[in-house]
Amino acid sequence: MIVIDWGTSSQRAWRLGANGGVLAAREAARGILHVASGGFPEALEAIAGDWIAEGERRVLLSGMVGSRQGWVEAPYLDCPAGAAELAKATVRAPYGPAAVLLVPGLSCRDEHGTPEVMRGEETQIAGLEAAFAAPGLACLPGSHSKWARVESGRILSFRTYLSGEAFAALKSATILGRMMSDGPVSEAAFDRGVARSGDSGHLLHHLFGVRALGLFGELAEADSASYLSGLLIGHETRAALSRRERVHLIGAPKLAALYARAIAACGGEPAIEDSEAARRGLARIGEKVAWD
Amino acid sequence: MIVIDWGTSSQRAWRLGANGGVLAAREAARGILHVASGGFPEALEAIAGDWIAEGERRVLLSGMVGSRQGWVEAPYLDCPAGAAELAKATVRAPYGPAAVLLVPGLSCRDEHGTPEVMRGEETQIAGLEAAFAAPGLACLPGSHSKWARVESGRILSFRTYLSGEAFAALKSATILGRMMSDGPVSEAAFDRGVARSGDSGHLLHHLFGVRALGLFGELAEADSASYLSGLLIGHETRAALSRRERVHLIGAPKLAALYARAIAACGGEPAIEDSEAARRGLARIGEKVAWD
Repeated sequence: MIVIDWGTSSQRAWRLGANGGVLAAREAARGILHVASGGFPEALEAIAGDWIAEGERRVLLSGMVGSRQGWVEAPYLDCPAGAAELAKATVRAPYGPAAVLLVPGLSCRDEHGTPEVMRGEETQIAGLEAAFAAPGLACLPGSHSKWARVESGRILSFRTYLSGEAFAALKSATILGRMMSDGPVSEAAFDRGVARSGDSGHLLHHLFGVRALGLFGELAEADSASYLSGLLIGHETRAALSRRERVHLIGAPKLAALYARAIAACGGEPAIEDSEAARRGLARIGEKVAWD
Repeated sequence: MIVIDWGTSSQRAWRLGANGGVLAAREAARGILHVASGGFPEALEAIAGDWIAEGERRVLLSGMVGSRQGWVEAPYLDCPAGAAELAKATVRAPYGPAAVLLVPGLSCRDEHGTPEVMRGEETQIAGLEAAFAAPGLACLPGSHSKWARVESGRILSFRTYLSGEAFAALKSATILGRMMSDGPVSEAAFDRGVARSGDSGHLLHHLFGVRALGLFGELAEADSASYLSGLLIGHETRAALSRRERVHLIGAPKLAALYARAIAACGGEPAIEDSEAARRGLARIGEKVAWD
């Protein structure tokens, strides 16, 4: 079986043996943003054409390739859902040489009826071994961070926080960014922002504080971006974490390490997972697909 | 006396009679951003040179003209402060033909020790007649909205919310803006955003909801900007308003009207003030200045 985590900006592909073992792995920068409409068969063959030529007949794709802007839309499936439900809801792409199936994204409603969506993260969570051992939270940090409640390998519900994209927008397009110098993340300044997020006074007030602290010489320009990052991630973490519990972190190592700091500071128990969750999730969903 | 509300982007000037009555009024786009270093005497004469030539010897300035980027820096004065304290802390600018004094800004600390600043708003609040009648809140909406607690004409403390600038940054630099079409404000969509701000789940989660509602066809592109505005102003208002009380609104009429809707929806009692607060505040402070 060939499995591909195919997102907006990149592809990660694996050729798996009968037992799910990895025979080969590849990465490419051919995310869906870089594939023209109608160009998906060719983009698949660019990364895995030789494996198909060698006889692979099953291809499973997850991520934005199943969105409206992707190859074929795989409509959002309602929570709760795990590998079995995802396998049943896969959608076939028109491709002659092999069976190509797309894993759907998930949706749910928050307690007030506002919709929520994820696409790609459901497969990573399905690959989280620990999620089968005990109920807990999975956190997938990014532009739109996802916090999912998982039990027995199924996603019961989830919430998205716009923290990453808000950070970038505040840094690039407000007065806060004009007082920030570039440089490495300061863990001390990040921790200070996380601590500030626990103060009364709302995020919108805390944001102005970044400006005022700078004006009074109480926050260095070199520390401002790290402080702002801690402030936003701290707010997100406090909102998402309702009690002391394990939080499984799946994400880019540097960002996951920052989230782990924030989660620990806010009373949670962070556990940084390895980077192979997508591959394991695809393998697990692929096992349950009715290929014929 | 000549009084000028001299901000970042514009000037409003009045010539006042002995009793504080308005003899003449003028506006110009010559904010401090449009005045080169050393160009302030000339910029003053451009708007009020004829009045000075006719014998006016007292000029009182408020706003960003007293900032580090202005004519002369008038350092922030600590709260609590009213017209008398502001008059005493005015700073003289080097100018031969007349006495030119600058009103200082105000600063305070929130309950956690983080600094707060305002410059220009203190003069508007000093001109708020109603602030002398009963204790209450003054709200000055804008890029950095100010909420001040006022009693007997003195500002006891205040809080700033970055809502206006955050709105502009989120609209211009995130995926939320890419699903917004331009157009007039929809009051119904604004109200819906204000209502949403009262839901549990944190602003950062509510922001992603703007995206998800659009994706599900539950929020029209033409309504998204108004909804986002209501969401941010609603969050600000709920954070700033701790009990049912009068809120005096000083600001641009359209924005003040939106804040009035949000304040009423969140249980406050909005009162939109006229646009002459700055002039009245300057007159009141000018009466208390020791000119000689």
